[in-house]
Amino acid sequence: MATPQERSWQVSEARFFPDRLHHSETIYTVGNGYMGLRATFEEDYPGQFVSTLVHGIFDHAEGELVPELVNLPNPLPITIEVDGETFGLDHGTVLGFSRVLDLKQASLSRGVTWRNSKGAVVQITFERFASLEQEHLLAQRVVVRALTQPCTIRIVASIDGRQTNEGVWHWAELDSGPADKQRIYVFGETGQSHYHIAVMSSLIAADPAHAITTLPSPIHQPALMSEFTLDVDQAATFDKFNALHTSRDPGDPLVAAHLTLDDAQARGWDALLTAHAAEWATYWHESDIEIEGDEPAQRAIRFAMYHVLIAAPRHDENVSIGAKTLAGLGYKGHVFWDTELFMLPFLTVTQPDLARNLVMYRYHRLLGARKKARENGFEGAMFPWESTDTGEETTPRWSLPEPDGTRFRIWTGDTEQHISTDIAYAVLQFWRWTGDDDFFAKYGAEIVLDTAIFWGSRIEYNDGQDRFELSMQIGPDEYHENVNNSAFTNSMVRWHLQSALQVRDWLLEHRAAEANALFSSIGLTDDKVAHWREIIDKMYVPHDEQRGILEQFDGFFNLQPLNLAHWQPRTANMDWILGHEPIQHIMVIKQADIVMLMALLGDEFGSVEERLRNWQLYWPVADHGSSLSLSIHAWVAARLGLVDQAYELYMRGAAIDLEDSKGNVRDGIHGAASGGLWEAIVFGFAGVSVKNGELVVDPHLPAHWKKMTFRVRVNGKQQTVRLSAE
Amino acid sequence: MATPQERSWQVSEARFFPDRLHHSETIYTVGNGYMGLRATFEEDYPGQFVSTLVHGIFDHAEGELVPELVNLPNPLPITIEVDGETFGLDHGTVLGFSRVLDLKQASLSRGVTWRNSKGAVVQITFERFASLEQEHLLAQRVVVRALTQPCTIRIVASIDGRQTNEGVWHWAELDSGPADKQRIYVFGETGQSHYHIAVMSSLIAADPAHAITTLPSPIHQPALMSEFTLDVDQAATFDKFNALHTSRDPGDPLVAAHLTLDDAQARGWDALLTAHAAEWATYWHESDIEIEGDEPAQRAIRFAMYHVLIAAPRHDENVSIGAKTLAGLGYKGHVFWDTELFMLPFLTVTQPDLARNLVMYRYHRLLGARKKARENGFEGAMFPWESTDTGEETTPRWSLPEPDGTRFRIWTGDTEQHISTDIAYAVLQFWRWTGDDDFFAKYGAEIVLDTAIFWGSRIEYNDGQDRFELSMQIGPDEYHENVNNSAFTNSMVRWHLQSALQVRDWLLEHRAAEANALFSSIGLTDDKVAHWREIIDKMYVPHDEQRGILEQFDGFFNLQPLNLAHWQPRTANMDWILGHEPIQHIMVIKQADIVMLMALLGDEFGSVEERLRNWQLYWPVADHGSSLSLSIHAWVAARLGLVDQAYELYMRGAAIDLEDSKGNVRDGIHGAASGGLWEAIVFGFAGVSVKNGELVVDPHLPAHWKKMTFRVRVNGKQQTVRLSAE
Repeated sequence: MATPQERSWQVSEARFFPDRLHHSETIYTVGNGYMGLRATFEEDYPGQFVSTLVHGIFDHAEGELVPELVNLPNPLPITIEVDGETFGLDHGTVLGFSRVLDLKQASLSRGVTWRNSKGAVVQITFERFASLEQEHLLAQRVVVRALTQPCTIRIVASIDGRQTNEGVWHWAELDSGPADKQRIYVFGETGQSHYHIAVMSSLIAADPAHAITTLPSPIHQPALMSEFTLDVDQAATFDKFNALHTSRDPGDPLVAAHLTLDDAQARGWDALLTAHAAEWATYWHESDIEIEGDEPAQRAIRFAMYHVLIAAPRHDENVSIGAKTLAGLGYKGHVFWDTELFMLPFLTVTQPDLARNLVMYRYHRLLGARKKARENGFEGAMFPWESTDTGEETTPRWSLPEPDGTRFRIWTGDTEQHISTDIAYAVLQFWRWTGDDDFFAKYGAEIVLDTAIFWGSRIEYNDGQDRFELSMQIGPDEYHENVNNSAFTNSMVRWHLQSALQVRDWLLEHRAAEANALFSSIGLTDDKVAHWREIIDKMYVPHDEQRGILEQFDGFFNLQPLNLAHWQPRTANMDWILGHEPIQHIMVIKQADIVMLMALLGDEFGSVEERLRNWQLYWPVADHGSSLSLSIHAWVAARLGLVDQAYELYMRGAAIDLEDSKGNVRDGIHGAASGGLWEAIVFGFAGVSVKNGELVVDPHLPAHWKKMTFRVRVNGKQQTVRLSAE
Repeated sequence: MATPQERSWQVSEARFFPDRLHHSETIYTVGNGYMGLRATFEEDYPGQFVSTLVHGIFDHAEGELVPELVNLPNPLPITIEVDGETFGLDHGTVLGFSRVLDLKQASLSRGVTWRNSKGAVVQITFERFASLEQEHLLAQRVVVRALTQPCTIRIVASIDGRQTNEGVWHWAELDSGPADKQRIYVFGETGQSHYHIAVMSSLIAADPAHAITTLPSPIHQPALMSEFTLDVDQAATFDKFNALHTSRDPGDPLVAAHLTLDDAQARGWDALLTAHAAEWATYWHESDIEIEGDEPAQRAIRFAMYHVLIAAPRHDENVSIGAKTLAGLGYKGHVFWDTELFMLPFLTVTQPDLARNLVMYRYHRLLGARKKARENGFEGAMFPWESTDTGEETTPRWSLPEPDGTRFRIWTGDTEQHISTDIAYAVLQFWRWTGDDDFFAKYGAEIVLDTAIFWGSRIEYNDGQDRFELSMQIGPDEYHENVNNSAFTNSMVRWHLQSALQVRDWLLEHRAAEANALFSSIGLTDDKVAHWREIIDKMYVPHDEQRGILEQFDGFFNLQPLNLAHWQPRTANMDWILGHEPIQHIMVIKQADIVMLMALLGDEFGSVEERLRNWQLYWPVADHGSSLSLSIHAWVAARLGLVDQAYELYMRGAAIDLEDSKGNVRDGIHGAASGGLWEAIVFGFAGVSVKNGELVVDPHLPAHWKKMTFRVRVNGKQQTVRLSAE
């Protein structure tokens, strides 16, 4: 049991509910920006979803539509025999169970008091962390204590190399065995992508000393073992250190794994945990938000930030954060706009070094984006809707078959084109907050301008109306596919081209030499610039002049109305209920669309009255069928002064992962929902922005938040924001 | 979704977890001090534990060891057919589920969005409350709305008379059928106790009007029916009003039930709910505790008070609150010391009218207590450990058979004799707070004195030591049975006799005539009084002179030590783990025992240092195997200034019912744990007491409780206590 102060840093459960098995596996995930491991049990449990993911290790298996992050060999297994009987939660008697995720030091601990069928009672505690200081290291500790009678204990620590991605086998080669007398390894080479990976584990009897031996074991499951007896109230502590290296890292993976374990063993558990916790203390010093007077809201934001931080690469600018982070196989580890518009802002504002890696991930993938543009008959850079290691489009074109065998066409990879502008927006935000002109001139500007070139070639001129249009688009609201003149997309494209002009001017003024090199490299001619100006002037955005509101797309106001207020309570999404085709004709939207536009553009969208008018039309028809919706609504509601509603939306957003309110957390953490909660607080309630390099704060706090404190970085300088209810 | 303010008045769930079925049934119980109904589903669910309990309706079935509260015919059933398919959570598709217990107005609502196998989607909302204004009325409302297509709906409202107490049938006679064209009834007579009960229900099409008909139905399940069609987005609202009357109430139960329904139907749902909510507003005006800065602690105390209030009889001084309240069949509805020392204080201090009923329950059962004393060879009044309607001892003497067939002897009915003193203590507290001398002289004094007479006859004189002793006792710690010289019991008996002397003096001084009549009626002679004085002088209480601590009983310090700190986490109790016999010899105690004594006696126990010394010995060995333990520990810890520890104990106490941390909430609410939370806050953290008719407040609040406000009644006058952290 914890003090309220501790409690606000913890997610915990005091009993084991098999009902919540997969939800808990996801939310208790540990990670360090390199690897992420679901909170499956060391001793195994029927039906658990094991996943061990390392950034960047994608593979496109034969017969699969798209590549996916590979589920690596599982380093977690530790089985414990008590007088010959294997410990497990599904047999014997569980006398007690508790699990605590300590967000502050990013470690997971679990205790079980267990009685075997012959009456011997043992206390078993597990602890694990993925070291933030040494990112290749996953450390585990197990303590076994005999409580009622002397016991013979056998501990078997193994690596399970038989993992698949829900049945898909990704290995061209898999090799395993003892690495030395107290080490085991699994080495693999992926079939299509030819990445090499090594997982190596050592078992150490930390207290007291016991002999460790390798164990003859089934194929792909190398194992180490220790056997000993415990007197009543005597305990034994073992550490299992696991090293994960791949051919994306320096050096031979197996050699590097040995070095990682040598170092870990020499330093020992306490030193490793101390160093890990110290790194986390720095993370939280940069990123924490303190909310006084609302424990649930406080815990929720820390939990959300934890999950973005454990997924954010620290030392690698060629990987990015997938939609479900590294906490599950959902969306196959693919990177969407979720990263740039939902998760990245938190890092841009509090830890720009981490944000920079994610921006660079896109920079390095301009080749893929240019390829996509070219193949579609356009110029410039057209980013893929779903991105992996190569930067090519990896959105599947067809869904998995429905029970009746039908599949439907997935259009997002073809027509959800706003992703290119979303990335440009994020890059500009990064520049605005960091003031890092060198970085922007060298990398950022190219992204903004080359995607603008794409739009210049993509735009459609409507001769009859003398205006520019965009047909066949999917806006944020994915319930309505291939619409014409998405107000979100058209508005953002206009904003994008305006920004591109400003970027061009700035480059010419401040970095003339680089500017000309860049313009010539990407083919930014004066003709193109003139065309942009024309588009900006004549861009069509559907709207209702009389009511003073935007129309989400051509014909939106003619859709069939549906009173969503009557569809409560509801966990299922409206498209799933009504069907993919029928919902195209119904006025229910998946998520913030016009509202998203208001979030991104703020004052530039229009006056408060104008935004309120649009809000009144669009929030009642939002299904929040996407986890990207609630937090954006909270952000906009807070900016409009609708604080109570904003708070309610924020708390519903917090429930997506913590309470599994949408019932799909088993697939992984909703990374965008996590980042979105941060946006709702900092951009929404606190009203933080940067204008002309200066921090602006315009708070609308919920009345019961007595105080709120957080730090931001503007132009590289950390500033503390302290707000109070008054 | 609710504001934090609303949330602190709500217990809710946003999804349906079959894992938590029975836990939820208990915590969402509705009641009104007359009846209590578990939150089972109107439409039924496989394995649900239906219970409908009315205070006082006990029956001792053939072949059973003891009488029990009878599980009455279930008035809740409402089944809904959608195009011929019966709605249920275990089939079709649940698109959404939510349930909210509104503590403020004591109503339970549930919403389900459901799709039948043919694709028709309906929204169904249920609401129910047991009227506090009209205690025979249980009101239900159901609203069905067609969402996707026109539907044929058939609503069947029935009473299910086939209920048993886990297989035990209590009816000598059971009769059922239509009572008129829109009413049905079940009438029953219990087999041994010959109580008559009537459950009568009417179904009303509230909006729009639809025909109601009776339905031919299986035996003991009379039913009413309405069939109609709904267009898309059209809804139909039905009210089911249920009247519960018994032969313990005025009038013929069936006739009275008709009158109750006539009145309910004439007034209608809105008027009934308004009147009910108004009564609850009064309840909360008297009893609420506002804690600012701690939503979990705030919700926990309101939830706890709610459960005591819905179980507290308002108009009946011949019933009392069982250990599991009216929320389940656990402990068969029997009344223990849980009522007097855990639940009653909350009522004594905030709603003395309710407390008075509970005190009178014991007064009216003095005959049973005298019978028990007589049969055991003693004088005066010896209250039963477990009490029902008659006031006789109803503790079973043997446990149910273990899996191997063995039973063990249950000794509490024989030797947990401190119950008589506990009741006297509660009566004196009631007098102290209310200052109601008339009531005390007329009723209370007799309880205090006649139980003192019991002790005068029960006490044992040890000739060799020249001291008074008590052998074969069970103190609060029930892990150690039939011990000699329980320090708790011996100390409380001494305190009881001292109090009895004061009561006698007060009576002689202020109510001389009544005093002499009473003394002669109960046989309180001068000899007896002299004997009391001698006992007080020479009462033996085991202790360790050198260490300055009490010894829980003779030989306690020689028990085998066990490091309870190593037995974590743990849901199971230590006696269950170690065995009933072995634990007798081990130094682990079930619950607060010496600590309970400190709670009850406060300063009279000894100096703060003395109490701290005892605390240091006894809290580490407390198993909290009883739900009566944590809150008492919290209370004492707060008084000793150990505020952080007290807070932790309080929150663990709160988890017993809300989180089902002991895994047994399915049997009913832990009434003593609920009342204990109130004691921990008011007597512990706030340090409230009455000295010489004046309110004393000595707060030690948790640092993060910004403000705390509550009201108490002293001498009939309401006073508001406002505390703040400073």
